[in-house]
Amino acid sequence: MIALITDFGIKDPYVGVVKGVIYSQGYTGSIVDICHHVVPYSIEHAQYILTTSYRYFPDNTIFLVVVDPGVGTQRNILLIHDGRYYFFMPDNGIAGCFNQNTIKVWSVDTQEFVHASSTFHGRDIFAMLASRLAMQGIEAIHCKEYTNYVQHPFPWYDIKVDTVYTKVVHIDRFGNCILSLPNEQYSLQLNAIIVNNKRYTLYHCKTYADVPLEAIGILKGSSGFIEICMNQKDVSKRLAVTTGDMVELFYE
Amino acid sequence: MIALITDFGIKDPYVGVVKGVIYSQGYTGSIVDICHHVVPYSIEHAQYILTTSYRYFPDNTIFLVVVDPGVGTQRNILLIHDGRYYFFMPDNGIAGCFNQNTIKVWSVDTQEFVHASSTFHGRDIFAMLASRLAMQGIEAIHCKEYTNYVQHPFPWYDIKVDTVYTKVVHIDRFGNCILSLPNEQYSLQLNAIIVNNKRYTLYHCKTYADVPLEAIGILKGSSGFIEICMNQKDVSKRLAVTTGDMVELFYE
Amino acid sequence: MIALITDFGIKDPYVGVVKGVIYSQGYTGSIVDICHHVVPYSIEHAQYILTTSYRYFPDNTIFLVVVDPGVGTQRNILLIHDGRYYFFMPDNGIAGCFNQNTIKVWSVDTQEFVHASSTFHGRDIFAMLASRLAMQGIEAIHCKEYTNYVQHPFPWYDIKVDTVYTKVVHIDRFGNCILSLPNEQYSLQLNAIIVNNKRYTLYHCKTYADVPLEAIGILKGSSGFIEICMNQKDVSKRLAVTTGDMVELFYE
Repeated sequence: MIALITDFGIKDPYVGVVKGVIYSQGYTGSIVDICHHVVPYSIEHAQYILTTSYRYFPDNTIFLVVVDPGVGTQRNILLIHDGRYYFFMPDNGIAGCFNQNTIKVWSVDTQEFVHASSTFHGRDIFAMLASRLAMQGIEAIHCKEYTNYVQHPFPWYDIKVDTVYTKVVHIDRFGNCILSLPNEQYSLQLNAIIVNNKRYTLYHCKTYADVPLEAIGILKGSSGFIEICMNQKDVSKRLAVTTGDMVELFYE
Repeated sequence: MIALITDFGIKDPYVGVVKGVIYSQGYTGSIVDICHHVVPYSIEHAQYILTTSYRYFPDNTIFLVVVDPGVGTQRNILLIHDGRYYFFMPDNGIAGCFNQNTIKVWSVDTQEFVHASSTFHGRDIFAMLASRLAMQGIEAIHCKEYTNYVQHPFPWYDIKVDTVYTKVVHIDRFGNCILSLPNEQYSLQLNAIIVNNKRYTLYHCKTYADVPLEAIGILKGSSGFIEICMNQKDVSKRLAVTTGDMVELFYE
Repeated sequence: MIALITDFGIKDPYVGVVKGVIYSQGYTGSIVDICHHVVPYSIEHAQYILTTSYRYFPDNTIFLVVVDPGVGTQRNILLIHDGRYYFFMPDNGIAGCFNQNTIKVWSVDTQEFVHASSTFHGRDIFAMLASRLAMQGIEAIHCKEYTNYVQHPFPWYDIKVDTVYTKVVHIDRFGNCILSLPNEQYSLQLNAIIVNNKRYTLYHCKTYADVPLEAIGILKGSSGFIEICMNQKDVSKRLAVTTGDMVELFYE
């Protein structure tokens, strides 16, 4: 199985063309769209989408993570194996979401793709690599072990005495604000949040329907990260936050 | 075949993850996206999307209808069979779109899913049930017959003398306004509509290209419901309506 | 393989229903979404999406191109073969994107579809034709050779002395403006662009990351058409252009 994470959106034919290339190489398996709405060029958002989705896929799934502001420059393309899955991605920091002690990383030799465009490696290189790995195995990928890859830290949070500094890493369709703060940091003492210099009291809950009307809830999110939410309302609008905004939480 | 109707949108990895889980259970068939843009939490909109789509699918298709504002509360999960198709959905009224004399309904025992999150049953329960039903048949689903399920009425309209009270149940990409009024109620006497206290004369037509420039058309819609339309224009903007708005039609 | 290009969008169940019909006829292959966000009713935009995507698909792929403002009128439905692929589309000008000397064109006899709706031929006719062609071959399609089909010219540009008159044919998710001007017309002398009566100097580049901050770049696009771009910025907003807008380029 091949699964796709990109910032291509779906207004363009880019995703369809990537699939066309994969199938043109003879691949006959499934291709699953995980997300094509990564915030354009955002390494951190790509890390969030990847981290919260890949574990739910079958063993040996090949993930293409194409969020690639440096496309066409000298940046490397990485192949990563964590013992269960394979990942292709540009060497731009996304790989920092893995525990580096649990993965094996290769730099892919892309010299053979002499006719690749400068601006669409998803089609001209990544799609070719994914179909080849799926059909012929890792021996068919020209690559060498590589340890000096770029690592953007993820998740990002900082705990100082009674304050947690973190950020909104994702806002879902319902407006729920997911923080770059793992559920392991959840505590019933986390009773307030400051966003844009305003302080809000938080209501602890297990699910959205528990939250009283107009209250702002906090819960352990299904993605593994703490969420700020309301009951059938868009809390991101209420707090006027966007993806990437800094927030502070308080233990009280 | 498994087909999906949700209000998850596609900016989040939720739909991809549901597919990942289905395939992880060993399912190898097709998964078709019908719609992930159900108006968030809207039972009625879910009913419209389901009603107008399921008949076009192959026999034995399994439909997951996950519009579930009560996720994580004590609401039941239903399995429905109409003799041709299977449907999983929360017990929140969506089932009211079926003729209850033609379906068999079960309440699913979800006790086994002890590790399910409180907020993402699409991934943790519905996906598991769909793949199991597809691969092992209905005997593998722990459920008991159930008749006391919630039924939200659909479609909704009320005919009083010369007036039809109904609502806009869906606005399509072209701005066509589909009413909660079946084509069987169509009549050449339906000559005017009142929306937001304004009255508009309706032009009867068979297809969009028949409608004169700037006129507002009425036709028997391809979905089985009466549509208000214009010729290559967005009538929803012209009338300033949104999904769920009440309208009145007049027989003259 | 069947691949889809439509202006249906994805908020409606239309695309899912088309797939349901295709599978209901017994087809078991893949169906790939190329693009459902063709600008509504835009022949020219459909031509751009088709032209820049189909070559990347496997031999014998069947393309459904359903951008059809005249649905339900007497317009013909075309079947086209270019020696490698098959295409079904309404006879409304889209076919003008092919070199007419390299294709064979048939008009499809749709009399048998007596129960087709007037407004959704994607579901009632095109889906039936695609599955039949895929499963039974061209002998099963009732059609006759046809040469008098409508041809909307594509791409559109006009070179006069030192000025190229053309238009923005597509704006991608990143805001890059793709011109209706093939890469073959690229020249290092193309040094300025006029949009909305304002003149901008162009910076020649190979990829987006080459462009200096705030500069406006020009490059040979990966789609085969010249692009105007910025480095991690939305140039369409900077220039305030939309799809279809006229622009002038200057050789200096």
